[in-house]
Amino acid sequence: MPPDSKIAIIGFGAFGQLVARHLRDHAPICVCDPVVRVNDLPQVTAEVAAQCEVVILAMPLSRMREVLLRIAGHLRPGTLVIDVCSVKLRPAQLMLELLPEHVELVSSHPLFGPQSAADGLSGHRIAWCPLRGRRHLMAVAMMRKLGLRVMITTPEQHDRDMAVVQGLTHLIARSLSKLGPMPSRLATASFQQLLLAAGMVQGDSPELLRTILNDNPYAKEIRDRFLTAASEAADVG
Amino acid sequence: MPPDSKIAIIGFGAFGQLVARHLRDHAPICVCDPVVRVNDLPQVTAEVAAQCEVVILAMPLSRMREVLLRIAGHLRPGTLVIDVCSVKLRPAQLMLELLPEHVELVSSHPLFGPQSAADGLSGHRIAWCPLRGRRHLMAVAMMRKLGLRVMITTPEQHDRDMAVVQGLTHLIARSLSKLGPMPSRLATASFQQLLLAAGMVQGDSPELLRTILNDNPYAKEIRDRFLTAASEAADVG
Repeated sequence: MPPDSKIAIIGFGAFGQLVARHLRDHAPICVCDPVVRVNDLPQVTAEVAAQCEVVILAMPLSRMREVLLRIAGHLRPGTLVIDVCSVKLRPAQLMLELLPEHVELVSSHPLFGPQSAADGLSGHRIAWCPLRGRRHLMAVAMMRKLGLRVMITTPEQHDRDMAVVQGLTHLIARSLSKLGPMPSRLATASFQQLLLAAGMVQGDSPELLRTILNDNPYAKEIRDRFLTAASEAADVG
Repeated sequence: MPPDSKIAIIGFGAFGQLVARHLRDHAPICVCDPVVRVNDLPQVTAEVAAQCEVVILAMPLSRMREVLLRIAGHLRPGTLVIDVCSVKLRPAQLMLELLPEHVELVSSHPLFGPQSAADGLSGHRIAWCPLRGRRHLMAVAMMRKLGLRVMITTPEQHDRDMAVVQGLTHLIARSLSKLGPMPSRLATASFQQLLLAAGMVQGDSPELLRTILNDNPYAKEIRDRFLTAASEAADVG
C-alpha cells in the first residue's frame, strides 16, 4: 500500500487488535467496534470506511452482512476491502454481492492468532484469495516485508483444506476438553504434543468455533468421515 | 544393579534393541529372540534366564505366557524380572501367577520409543510398578543415572491413565491416517502440532496397537467416551 494509505479496521476483537498492533507503525489506523463507540456506530463506521484506502473487515461472519450494507454506499472507487474470516466462500460471496464494482476485493484468512503469533508474524501464513482488482499486490508486498508467507488460493480450495485443518483440530480439541482433566504424570511425548495442539485452540471464542464448524460448507462431511474412521479405528479385532 | 549383574533381554524387537543399546556399556547382556536363534530357542531362553540376575521381558504381550512358563522353573532365587509391555494389569497378573515366589518382580512401561528417544533417554519417563521384592531399587538408581524419570505407580493406575494417553493418541492418529493425504500448504500451527503428534505413533506395529487398544481393560470405555464427545462436539447449534 502507498505509505500514506489510511487503514480502517472494522471489528476490534482479538484479531482486529492483533492487526492494529502490527500495522500501526506502517499506516494511520481507524478502528470501529461496538465496544469502542456505541451510540453513533453506524454513522461512524460509514464515515471511517469513506475516508480510508484500505478497509479490513474483522468482525464475526454473523455481523458481516449488516456491516457491508452499512458501508457499501460510502466506499470510494479503488478502496481495497479485505475480510479476515476463518471461512472464505461465504464472505467472498457476500462482498461480491453487496459491495459496488468500483471497490477492489480480497478474501483472506490469517492462519495464526494472538497466541501462535505472540512472538511475531515472521514465518506465519496467510491464505489470500484475490477477488477483484490488482491493488492487493501492494498489500502482499507489505505482508512479505513483515515476514508473512502469503498463500494465494481460492475460497473453495481454502474451505476444503480448512475443513480438515481447523475442523478436525477444533473437533479433537473440543472432544478432549469434554473428557475432563487429562493425565499428566504418565504422559508420552506424542500425547504431550497432542495436548499442546489442542491447547492452542481451546481458548478460541464460541463464535469462531461456530464459524469453523458450521459456516464451512465442507466441514460436516470431513467431520463425519473422521467420526466414521474413529469408530472403525477403535475396532482392531 | 551390582556392576557384575548379567541382563537377559527376551524379545529383540524395536524396544529390546533400544534397551540393549543403552545398557550394553553398563552390564553384560544376553539376548533371546526367535529371529536370532530359532532351532533351540526354548532351551536357550531357559538357560539364559537361569544365568542372569536380571531378566527383561520385551516380547509382545501375546507371547508372554509361553515365555513365562518356559523360564519359570529355571530362574534363580533373587532374580529380578521386569516386563516392558504397554499395558500393566495383565502382565503383572501373569508374572505373579506363573513365576515362583523366590523371584522379584517389576512391571514397567517405558513411556518412550525408538523414535522419541532417538536423541537419548534423558528426561524421558518410565512407569514403574514394583510387585515383589526390593532389588528393583538398584535398577531405579541406575535408570536415574541414565537421566530417566522413574514414575512409581500401580498397574491399575497405569492402565487407567494410558487408556487416555496412548488409547486416544493412537485412535486419533489412526483415524487421521484413514482420511488420506492431509493439507500442507494451508496449515495452522495447531494443526501442524496435531500431525506431529500423530506422526510419532503412526509407525507403531499392529501388535503394539492391539495391545494399547484391546489389552488395556479401560481403553474401550475411554474410546467410547471420546467418540460420544466428538459426536456432541460436532453439534455446535
